[in-house]
Amino acid sequence: MRTNGIITLLTDFGTRDAYVGIMKGVALGICPAARLVDLTHEVPPQAVQLGALLLRSAVAYFPTGTVHLAVVDPGVGARRQPIAVVGEHACLVGPDNGLLAPAAAALGAYRVRRLARDELFRHPVSHTFHGRDVFAPVAAHLAAGTPPDALGPELAALQALALPEPRIEAGAVHGEVIYVDRFGNLVTNIPAAALASFRLPHLSVRIGETMISSLASSYAAAQPGTPLAVIGSWGTLEVAVRDGSAAEELRAGIAARVTVTANGA
Amino acid sequence: MRTNGIITLLTDFGTRDAYVGIMKGVALGICPAARLVDLTHEVPPQAVQLGALLLRSAVAYFPTGTVHLAVVDPGVGARRQPIAVVGEHACLVGPDNGLLAPAAAALGAYRVRRLARDELFRHPVSHTFHGRDVFAPVAAHLAAGTPPDALGPELAALQALALPEPRIEAGAVHGEVIYVDRFGNLVTNIPAAALASFRLPHLSVRIGETMISSLASSYAAAQPGTPLAVIGSWGTLEVAVRDGSAAEELRAGIAARVTVTANGA
Amino acid sequence: MRTNGIITLLTDFGTRDAYVGIMKGVALGICPAARLVDLTHEVPPQAVQLGALLLRSAVAYFPTGTVHLAVVDPGVGARRQPIAVVGEHACLVGPDNGLLAPAAAALGAYRVRRLARDELFRHPVSHTFHGRDVFAPVAAHLAAGTPPDALGPELAALQALALPEPRIEAGAVHGEVIYVDRFGNLVTNIPAAALASFRLPHLSVRIGETMISSLASSYAAAQPGTPLAVIGSWGTLEVAVRDGSAAEELRAGIAARVTVTANGA
Repeated sequence: MRTNGIITLLTDFGTRDAYVGIMKGVALGICPAARLVDLTHEVPPQAVQLGALLLRSAVAYFPTGTVHLAVVDPGVGARRQPIAVVGEHACLVGPDNGLLAPAAAALGAYRVRRLARDELFRHPVSHTFHGRDVFAPVAAHLAAGTPPDALGPELAALQALALPEPRIEAGAVHGEVIYVDRFGNLVTNIPAAALASFRLPHLSVRIGETMISSLASSYAAAQPGTPLAVIGSWGTLEVAVRDGSAAEELRAGIAARVTVTANGA
Repeated sequence: MRTNGIITLLTDFGTRDAYVGIMKGVALGICPAARLVDLTHEVPPQAVQLGALLLRSAVAYFPTGTVHLAVVDPGVGARRQPIAVVGEHACLVGPDNGLLAPAAAALGAYRVRRLARDELFRHPVSHTFHGRDVFAPVAAHLAAGTPPDALGPELAALQALALPEPRIEAGAVHGEVIYVDRFGNLVTNIPAAALASFRLPHLSVRIGETMISSLASSYAAAQPGTPLAVIGSWGTLEVAVRDGSAAEELRAGIAARVTVTANGA
Repeated sequence: MRTNGIITLLTDFGTRDAYVGIMKGVALGICPAARLVDLTHEVPPQAVQLGALLLRSAVAYFPTGTVHLAVVDPGVGARRQPIAVVGEHACLVGPDNGLLAPAAAALGAYRVRRLARDELFRHPVSHTFHGRDVFAPVAAHLAAGTPPDALGPELAALQALALPEPRIEAGAVHGEVIYVDRFGNLVTNIPAAALASFRLPHLSVRIGETMISSLASSYAAAQPGTPLAVIGSWGTLEVAVRDGSAAEELRAGIAARVTVTANGA
């Protein structure tokens, strides 16, 4: 894979401090032609799983050759390894704590390298801010053309992340909410493909006390204020309320159970 | 108009999800040289009018050839059309729900095109995220040099947006607050020109129970904590409190009535 | 110093209005090749000292030739001067109200110029938004290659900012919290060098009722939920709680006193 100069950034650093800007300064010092794109910096502090899901949701939409820099790193300074995941389509750079695993799986074939080349880091390397001293420099070196095999030794595997998986039975799919977005849409882990056996749009979606009796084609297909089920932009079943927040109106959030059955079942 | 590679983005997507980053990835895949500038992503969800005002407030400050991509789109997936507004100075891309209308009017002469060329979209086109699948791709194609007449058929008009207009009488101007900014400044719809008949800085501004008895030249011209009236950066009358929030201290917000009269009237 | 095309932006404008985007539009109109990097726009309104500390924390991490544009400007339209600070490594552009002083000191040798050349401004120059009309244009002209001595006359000095300084005694260092970051980490004004006389990691840090009895090498060196002291990414002593917020758990904030003594003292 040839890098294309794009580096995306996803962190739990927020935007009120200058930490993200500092990482960008370091990256531009190494790769002046880098084009820096924020995915988000509002991952809740140390929420590795949420960060991992957001990263996975985005990587497919960037052109081949993009470097994705992700830092949600409660273990900074401890034993977790700094790594790069090198795929055909993209590189991921960050801590080996599960953060990169779902996006890596979405890349298809990939190799993992431990970041072990001191000369690629910013010195002195702190024990508290590897985003600045390790990950941003390495991402920038990759974007500038350093070949991935110069990063360090290959690792057999990266740290997995246990994500809740949907359970598919005859006539029913059991999943759960894995993400709540800004609009209060409840994103589930039930992929569109898992609904193939239903006679769409005829199906029933139950979440808590709420029953939704068909699959809508868009948010606008329901009446304002009405809960609806839709295949959302994540490619999975999503429960939404038109012109409202499903999270608030259904009082549901991450880990809420969602069951899909045939209509009338 | 020749595009200059700049694409601005204004949405109600917020910045805690990866939706904005995803739109940027799609745009960079089509126009690798695009320079992406955020206007804001914190338009309140589905607040078309606020988004429209913010967009209008910004377009004049970008160089000729800029493409402005705006998505506040409660009707995504329903009947509203995707459009581009093509002016001498700039192009606007977004849903035809009024969002683009005030900025279009500020552009001077323009033509409207319905986005109807499937090959310019990202496929499959979802029913829930036209920002990613329709608007970002079209904005990027424009920025990359696709001529506007290749976008689709011309429309006679775009969807208007009913904005509150000031009422100008002999000796009095009646307007209202249309925007409250981060500082709590109360931006009105009374343009500087509407005050030409007063003997400036002598005039009286009434908002709620508060009476302000002259036009200040700057925020700093008043005592800290004191309400003042000023021609603000929007080019309209603004009510502010020095080193404080007029919105909080005067308990006023959007739609609050503001009346300007001759001093002592 | 030759500029490198990078312009960073630090303001108290927030991101929900379009003010920052407008400044970027103005800058790109003057310097189309500018690369714009946000430091932060969430400095609390008119908090000059916090803005100054954040700016100082970032400048060292950008490559030589960067222009740093900073606007926290309660005195806009009044007597404070618009200035540029020109160092070997970087230029700073903003109001002369103390905002630039700590970063200037961190630059080493520098000269100060008053921004006095009307033809470098955007016209008409408002009294309310010098970020758009004065500072962004001048920063862009600098980034585009305008030599600093063309900006205006040299000033003997810039407005100082009184920052709390640590007091170093035999066997004790007295400092205070100067910044609380997103994670609730309490950043003090005690530089790493001030701890050189202790037998590290053996020292005692007292903040309020809390006593910490050694210097940790990283956040991860403590048990979750436990307060720790560490040399943080600002290069100073920092009090943190692993996987938690020290600000919340110790109920401490800006100006909280911090005393370091020999262990057991």
